Amino acid sequence: MSMYETTAWAKKSATSNFEKITIQRNLPGDNDVRFDLQYCGICHTDVHTVNNDVHIGLDDLGGTQYPVVPGHELAGIVAAVGKNVTKFKVGDKVGAGAICDSCMTCDSCQKGDEHFCENDFTFTYDAAIKHGHLVTESGYTYGGYTASHTLHESYLIKIPDAYPLEKAGPVFCAGITMYSPLVQWKANKGGMKVGIIGIGGLGQFGLKLAKAMGNEVYAISTSPDKATAARDAGADRFIVSTDANSMKSADNSIDLILNTVPAPHQLSHYLPLLKKNGTLVQLGLVLTDHHVQQIPLLFKRINITGSLIGSIQETQDCMDFCGTHNIMADTKVIKAEELDDLFAVLANKNDTVIRHVLDIAASM
Amino acid sequence: MSMYETTAWAKKSATSNFEKITIQRNLPGDNDVRFDLQYCGICHTDVHTVNNDVHIGLDDLGGTQYPVVPGHELAGIVAAVGKNVTKFKVGDKVGAGAICDSCMTCDSCQKGDEHFCENDFTFTYDAAIKHGHLVTESGYTYGGYTASHTLHESYLIKIPDAYPLEKAGPVFCAGITMYSPLVQWKANKGGMKVGIIGIGGLGQFGLKLAKAMGNEVYAISTSPDKATAARDAGADRFIVSTDANSMKSADNSIDLILNTVPAPHQLSHYLPLLKKNGTLVQLGLVLTDHHVQQIPLLFKRINITGSLIGSIQETQDCMDFCGTHNIMADTKVIKAEELDDLFAVLANKNDTVIRHVLDIAASM
Repeated sequence: MSMYETTAWAKKSATSNFEKITIQRNLPGDNDVRFDLQYCGICHTDVHTVNNDVHIGLDDLGGTQYPVVPGHELAGIVAAVGKNVTKFKVGDKVGAGAICDSCMTCDSCQKGDEHFCENDFTFTYDAAIKHGHLVTESGYTYGGYTASHTLHESYLIKIPDAYPLEKAGPVFCAGITMYSPLVQWKANKGGMKVGIIGIGGLGQFGLKLAKAMGNEVYAISTSPDKATAARDAGADRFIVSTDANSMKSADNSIDLILNTVPAPHQLSHYLPLLKKNGTLVQLGLVLTDHHVQQIPLLFKRINITGSLIGSIQETQDCMDFCGTHNIMADTKVIKAEELDDLFAVLANKNDTVIRHVLDIAASM
Repeated sequence: MSMYETTAWAKKSATSNFEKITIQRNLPGDNDVRFDLQYCGICHTDVHTVNNDVHIGLDDLGGTQYPVVPGHELAGIVAAVGKNVTKFKVGDKVGAGAICDSCMTCDSCQKGDEHFCENDFTFTYDAAIKHGHLVTESGYTYGGYTASHTLHESYLIKIPDAYPLEKAGPVFCAGITMYSPLVQWKANKGGMKVGIIGIGGLGQFGLKLAKAMGNEVYAISTSPDKATAARDAGADRFIVSTDANSMKSADNSIDLILNTVPAPHQLSHYLPLLKKNGTLVQLGLVLTDHHVQQIPLLFKRINITGSLIGSIQETQDCMDFCGTHNIMADTKVIKAEELDDLFAVLANKNDTVIRHVLDIAASM
């Protein structure tokens, strides 16, 4: 496949600083779209990956490959399209999330569940290229901290014209991570009581989406000082999970809880909040075990489950829903020269609702 | 309420033998049905309760009350009906399971989910009487090892004329315990791959019901010597859960697993068998914690849940389904004089598919 050169921001080792490098992307084939990045959201997963402390684990690369170009919250403008492309034209606002390729042939892919590709979807950065709908000279993927990218149109999301490009990236990560389980467990029909544990970047989207879908929304946090942010995002009630009385006040009251906590915890702490037949959805890449008692599962028929991002169609639906309901992340735009300082801060602390977004044009 | 006397078999302490005693039952009110017991199935829960080693835990009685009359698999013939009774007439075959009363007013009861009564359903024996649709002089319930019982018609099951009475009792315990989750998780529509862990009394019903519903059925057991019993009950495949190769052969293949194991175990052992979106239903009164990893929940969106018997309507549906499809437990009929020996055996070992049934008439 013919290649072209573009600019990217990369780390060459876990301990080095970010630097501007030149990488190669494949020129668009008949089904591909080349787009110029304007913004790329910065996710906490980026910090883990560049530091090689928690690998996303989708591929067996044996740890982070360097140079690593992170970024899976891409937003830009279409620059060129292959002759078979039907969904996009030059000038369209376009984005991409964590999935940049999948096998396209397994049952899951055929059903539009690319996030459950039975041959493993390809993560947008630091993942081995195996399905061949994009290529790099290194054999692994480069993410969205870059000036240009080319992807098969099947993995791209159309961003509504009126939606600010700088706000779109977080929709493809935090947004879809919350939207997919809300739809999967039918909160999109409204009328449920929905709990959101953790009032950070994900939790903020969860509150806004669940509220806009017509549900009564409970924000659940260890921090009483998150109450204002939670109310601002649409929470009807605020539960302090470290306060026994506060927890007791919501006993047996919630239909669906989405738990965004990314740190070690015990999920059993939250089960008393569920109604009979209620569901707890775990969302964080937590590596420690949960100790789960069997009897409460029987007497309340509660479900413990998990969810990971969402399909491409769900991501498009999420983007459209956010456009219709004017749902946006609280964002702060930064330049590439600020990446090292920001990553140092995020590595130590990740409890803000603010999602940072890299301004590509301003960083060139 | 006026009372009448009847015979029952009871233990007066955890260490005494069974003896024949006289108890009082309330005479049928306008909505009640009095029936003469012919048979009562013997469940392993009976052994736990009379020995006061695991209390069923539905009530806060502080352990087993003595004398205890066990039995929650009742089958008999209607002897008298109150004037408002519409579902039963004298001479009908009738049965009852673990639920003998509930509040009738909460949301769950109003929806026909008596097993989730928000004010706690009343267990058929050794449970405090609190809802008042039946009474005893002691204030707690006496079960089915008895010559006569009187219950509100709402808690009774009609047994099809052609169904052998001695086979009906196990339907109201093992049968419904398997039937309810099969319906809840849509295996009653057929076309799924259903796994049944544990080939005992419950497992046997699970295999037969799941097969008759039109599913491909996997029997999963620690004991290779259960293969024949499993095949006889309808299993299409037999998985030895202690054999890594056997487990590997069924990797990612099952939609719904019902786990009947009543002893300490780790549910995580069975999760690799589930397909994406698959569900594991825990059914045993297991008191030890499970250690559950979070990541597999995310990547396969699998559900861990539980189930406890079923509603009265589901129990009727289960009885009717068993009648239509000629599904019956393997049973062995015993007399009251054999109870002590049988309970001693069951206390030590409970791995047979045979359900024992007390012959009431032959024991008088």
